[in-house]
Amino acid sequence: MKKLPRARSGHPNILVEEVLRGDPRAVARVISQVEDDTQAAIPLLKELFSRTGRSLVIGITGPPGAGKSTLVDRLAGLYRKEDQRVGIIAVDPTSPFTGGAILGDRIRMQVHATDPGVFIRSMATRGHLGGLAKATQDVVSVLDAAGYQVVLVETVGVGQDEVDIVRTADVSVVVLMPDGGDDVQAMKAGLMEIGDLFVLNKSDKEGAERFERILLAILGGASRKDGWSPRLVKTVATQGEGVEEVKARIEEYRRHLRESPAARQHGEELARGRLLQLLRDRLLGRVLERVLDEATLERYSRSLAGRESDPYTITEQIMKKAGLK
Amino acid sequence: MKKLPRARSGHPNILVEEVLRGDPRAVARVISQVEDDTQAAIPLLKELFSRTGRSLVIGITGPPGAGKSTLVDRLAGLYRKEDQRVGIIAVDPTSPFTGGAILGDRIRMQVHATDPGVFIRSMATRGHLGGLAKATQDVVSVLDAAGYQVVLVETVGVGQDEVDIVRTADVSVVVLMPDGGDDVQAMKAGLMEIGDLFVLNKSDKEGAERFERILLAILGGASRKDGWSPRLVKTVATQGEGVEEVKARIEEYRRHLRESPAARQHGEELARGRLLQLLRDRLLGRVLERVLDEATLERYSRSLAGRESDPYTITEQIMKKAGLK
Repeated sequence: MKKLPRARSGHPNILVEEVLRGDPRAVARVISQVEDDTQAAIPLLKELFSRTGRSLVIGITGPPGAGKSTLVDRLAGLYRKEDQRVGIIAVDPTSPFTGGAILGDRIRMQVHATDPGVFIRSMATRGHLGGLAKATQDVVSVLDAAGYQVVLVETVGVGQDEVDIVRTADVSVVVLMPDGGDDVQAMKAGLMEIGDLFVLNKSDKEGAERFERILLAILGGASRKDGWSPRLVKTVATQGEGVEEVKARIEEYRRHLRESPAARQHGEELARGRLLQLLRDRLLGRVLERVLDEATLERYSRSLAGRESDPYTITEQIMKKAGLK
Repeated sequence: MKKLPRARSGHPNILVEEVLRGDPRAVARVISQVEDDTQAAIPLLKELFSRTGRSLVIGITGPPGAGKSTLVDRLAGLYRKEDQRVGIIAVDPTSPFTGGAILGDRIRMQVHATDPGVFIRSMATRGHLGGLAKATQDVVSVLDAAGYQVVLVETVGVGQDEVDIVRTADVSVVVLMPDGGDDVQAMKAGLMEIGDLFVLNKSDKEGAERFERILLAILGGASRKDGWSPRLVKTVATQGEGVEEVKARIEEYRRHLRESPAARQHGEELARGRLLQLLRDRLLGRVLERVLDEATLERYSRSLAGRESDPYTITEQIMKKAGLK
């Protein structure tokens, strides 16, 4: 119901041009609008979308403490040596168990703070209705359009949301560490589907060899339906050991993806997921904006809490009111 | 577009009556329909909802390996001694890092398999668009209506979804273990908001005292805006040590919640979140059913993958087609 002031004529186009030229301040401004989910972000995203699809988007996930931030840091450094511009998105879900990565992110900020070829953004969840995956994809699109050749998306959680976010990348890297070797066999189901590449970090630590054997037994030889056999790379990210190989393997997978007949299908599946998620969020947004005002929503909530009505009946009433076909 | 065969007249009512009488087979049948998200589930949930609100719903979360399943098991045992009927919902997000709990669940199944007073259900995520939180709430409602006085909801992940699920319980219990003492200070932000009660399990292990001191320093004395100061209980769940106190503290919090003026507000906030989530899912479901057929969705996905169109423009087209006010 709130109307935003109209943008000055031509203003969004200037901002789009600045983003396309790679101006970090313009990028930061558009990303803030995306994060705040303002109406103003939509025409910008529409304009920018056609200029996307050129970045290599690398998703990095794994349990807390595995050394994801350090690996991301080192990879960014290698790409910088090749003079590639690098975007880093650190996704911090609101969870009490992921604090370590927030600290890591702060340290990283300091390392790359003076390098204009690196753009770093932390993202956190807002509210119960998620939207983090959608916002992350939009931020990737902005960085992509702005000419960052490599975009690293790091998620610190290990839940469904985090896995979903990493799956939207071109290449998914799962970072593990030698601890918890007993659990890895239980991970077997689904492990290969999530990671295109596995990194055994802290591989100089006790138990690393045993853990490696278990992992290799799980990954060993098998290939997925897209014809790819996920690789395992051992690293000591703090020393930079093995990170060149991680980079090489990422690029190997990217080549595989480009040549594979499954690649087009993969792209279409990602697009479909993104569309459905956006549609779902905007349908709700529209209904909240036009049909369901705050007072009515409160009245409904009270009646539900008191068990005077049920959520299904109320939902049907709202959908009817929205005039939905 | 698919039409389901009409249920035989009176049939859903018989099923509802069987659930209300607490028949485990009827409960299992309705839960399956809820999980499969069939149209048939809706009239049943509508009927059952008015009979809910009597169970004590306990959410249990924490990092992998903290001993959640064992604690849930022991708590269930204590409530069974009081002849209370107990429902257990183990939420297993599709994540490679949570395999341990699946194993734990299998073991638990064996322990309680012969006790008709315990109903155990594992739930897993389906697809990218989540819906796990919604399905979990519906399953809690079914168990609540069926007269299970205590419903334990265990989530094994540590991401946003999992935290959201636990927050919908009456009482949230966060289970920690002495490992990772260095990380706990980073957890500080948000920790108190998630747990009404903290359990330091495996408290006979090395480092437990130090970990306890850190936790107490974080929790110590402070109270939340609802007037509650989250408690810390030390347990060795495998030995049953401290589990009685966990139970006592859960009940203490429940009394606090009942007497607190914040309780009504808490209930209304939960109801509001549940309503919005359901509305969002059903809006998308309706659009997919009536406006957006599979062929069109595929065409859109292809055009997005090829950057011929952008998701925002397509979404607006679909919303227009849906006739949404």
